[in-house]
Amino acid sequence: MIPLDYMQELFTFLQMDTTSAKGKGREAASFLADLMKEAGVGVEIVEGSVNPFVIGEIDVKADKTLLIYNHYDVQPVEPLNKWDTDPFEPTIKEGRIYARGVADDKGALLARLQGIRELIKENRLRVNLKFLYEGEEEIGSPNIKGFLTKYKERLKANYVLWEGAGRGVNGAPQVILGVKGLLYVEITSRTPKDLHSMYAPIARNPAWEIVRLLSGLRDERGRVKLSGFYDKVIRLSEKEREFAKFLSRDEMERALGQKVGEDFALRLVEEPTCNIDGIEAGYTGPGSKTVIPSQAFVKIDFRLVPEQRPEEVLESLRNYLRDFDVELKVYGMEEPHRTPFNTEIARAVRDSAKEVYGVEPLVIPNSPGTGPMASVSKILGTNQIADGVGPDKPDSNIHSFNENVVVEDYLLTIRHMKALLRLLSSH
Amino acid sequence: MIPLDYMQELFTFLQMDTTSAKGKGREAASFLADLMKEAGVGVEIVEGSVNPFVIGEIDVKADKTLLIYNHYDVQPVEPLNKWDTDPFEPTIKEGRIYARGVADDKGALLARLQGIRELIKENRLRVNLKFLYEGEEEIGSPNIKGFLTKYKERLKANYVLWEGAGRGVNGAPQVILGVKGLLYVEITSRTPKDLHSMYAPIARNPAWEIVRLLSGLRDERGRVKLSGFYDKVIRLSEKEREFAKFLSRDEMERALGQKVGEDFALRLVEEPTCNIDGIEAGYTGPGSKTVIPSQAFVKIDFRLVPEQRPEEVLESLRNYLRDFDVELKVYGMEEPHRTPFNTEIARAVRDSAKEVYGVEPLVIPNSPGTGPMASVSKILGTNQIADGVGPDKPDSNIHSFNENVVVEDYLLTIRHMKALLRLLSSH
Repeated sequence: MIPLDYMQELFTFLQMDTTSAKGKGREAASFLADLMKEAGVGVEIVEGSVNPFVIGEIDVKADKTLLIYNHYDVQPVEPLNKWDTDPFEPTIKEGRIYARGVADDKGALLARLQGIRELIKENRLRVNLKFLYEGEEEIGSPNIKGFLTKYKERLKANYVLWEGAGRGVNGAPQVILGVKGLLYVEITSRTPKDLHSMYAPIARNPAWEIVRLLSGLRDERGRVKLSGFYDKVIRLSEKEREFAKFLSRDEMERALGQKVGEDFALRLVEEPTCNIDGIEAGYTGPGSKTVIPSQAFVKIDFRLVPEQRPEEVLESLRNYLRDFDVELKVYGMEEPHRTPFNTEIARAVRDSAKEVYGVEPLVIPNSPGTGPMASVSKILGTNQIADGVGPDKPDSNIHSFNENVVVEDYLLTIRHMKALLRLLSSH
Repeated sequence: MIPLDYMQELFTFLQMDTTSAKGKGREAASFLADLMKEAGVGVEIVEGSVNPFVIGEIDVKADKTLLIYNHYDVQPVEPLNKWDTDPFEPTIKEGRIYARGVADDKGALLARLQGIRELIKENRLRVNLKFLYEGEEEIGSPNIKGFLTKYKERLKANYVLWEGAGRGVNGAPQVILGVKGLLYVEITSRTPKDLHSMYAPIARNPAWEIVRLLSGLRDERGRVKLSGFYDKVIRLSEKEREFAKFLSRDEMERALGQKVGEDFALRLVEEPTCNIDGIEAGYTGPGSKTVIPSQAFVKIDFRLVPEQRPEEVLESLRNYLRDFDVELKVYGMEEPHRTPFNTEIARAVRDSAKEVYGVEPLVIPNSPGTGPMASVSKILGTNQIADGVGPDKPDSNIHSFNENVVVEDYLLTIRHMKALLRLLSSH
């Protein structure tokens, strides 16, 4: 069982509204700083736009240093009427703790910190630690890159532990070693004005231009047709394929509300994609209006895998678009990242997970989602970044109502932190 | 010059607000009925939804009967601040009359009626006349088909004169002998829910389904790829091609705000089309959101030419859509219509136009737009329908602000009506 004072500390932390989208969270930053100082961690609070970064450091004169990243801000709780309990009044029901942020990411943050404080108290910490607690992750981390660049000397580490990856299929702990990259663009085609559709035999229609463009971007099976798109794709090794599992096929189909292929887990990890996020042109109200729209646009995201580079995909896209009368806007670029299987951090997270959870962990070479791992890797000069086990599960309702974690999983997160630090120092 | 009392009568008619979209127009219906009765025309007012139909008949014991169709309702005048003068206070400036409805369609209606009243007074009317004045054309003629069906015996005629076609390139009078047909559909693809775009490697995206569907519907040059689409298309004869002119190429390019091909006039007349009127899926707000939309739809209109049939195109579309996971809604079907060049009505309108305007008229086999000519033709049992010359010109600002006609063109419309009736009786 979790010690009562740990639980009280967690509840106090969860009671603090840290909704960054509403400008809330400073109280929690001070709360964390105080906990860290009490444990002997050197702390600094650095202003962001809404909530500050809390950075910390404890030097135990070890060879190696681990940087731990978590965020203390949360998503807005609305719609409130869908919650069975007050999202800022943590409640235990049937073995689960319900509260906003308990799964993403305040639970993992505090469990890890509690584990570390135990090690410090027991004088068994054998790895230098650095802490980076962000308060603006849920509003898109607007200041993280500038902050990392400015503080890179202070934050330099041999390894980075990411915010927490939870438990996956059959409750197996997940170890995620990377992220996909992203290129997000908007493409617009225009003419001077809307026209009556009787002019269709002679007038350009920007919507047809966008359709023509899109139909040349991807084939029917979803393969991207941009020149050179697959040239740098690294396929998974046999060993990586063995581990790459998320939910069971049934669970995945239930989660998505649609059928998926047998190879769904592999595809999620290793397939780069071109996705239409939004498209609009002309009359979209009820009934009919005969018009040639003067504007059509589409928003597209490309998810990229190692070693694809968003700038190179963008360049190939620009070349492709030369045959079309369109404008291009770029909204986002992130590089993909994969920490190799045989790195010290990957082995330590995997072995400690196996030890604590008693089953083989799911080691996912990269998440199907995107995050700034590659930026962190470059700025801080380490390729050893892993997302260790947190208390969340597929039914933790992250970003939704009735967010929750199983009490036992919180305790395991504390234990996993301790085991990881022990193994990391012995590598 | 126009007689002063004609001008006063026109101004009184134009001062009456007949905006059907705002439920206005009854006053004008009574006004017209009174004018007709005074001239010896038998009149009946038949209720519609907003404004009544005014039907009339004068039997001069001739062999042939002409039905004259016009509408007395107008489009809303907004935005009012764009008008230089009050839209319901007719004003003469630099040889033009400015008022809502003077070009579409109250001017043509009254000029014709004034010409007819002259002939009756002069005892020179040699064709039986029927009148159909609609008050709901600008809201889509919601009751016209039911009305025609119910009153078809009363409205039966050898010829039908449509609402007025104005003057085109170089001021030449236009004679329009038909309309294009229409098939308007909406096609929707759905999945159970929006998904995070990281699932793109395994999840269906309805927007891609719609793009795939559209890219198979039309080739790059705009040719429709539906099976059998062009089988029944009647290409124009050499003679029809000679006459088929609208604006000059320069004028057309200015009007559309884009370049057009040399064969633009022919294409407008004889090319059937598939046009995207509207398309929408997913996130269309500012910036980026990574989502696989759960719904995508497209609104499409097909403009059809003789002898294409909307039901047959629909059938071919349904067959095509069998390969896609989509729903189909049909919003509208109209058949195309072309009155042959060598019919009595076509010759009479053309010859009278040449006589009155002093130049060869532009005889357009069918307008690039759509109207219920084919329905009228079928219900009333005549294929002889022509759109004669009205007072409007390309710069008459129909449906827009500062709607106007040249004073002289109003006078010519009266004269053309008289000449047409004279020629029609001599055929």
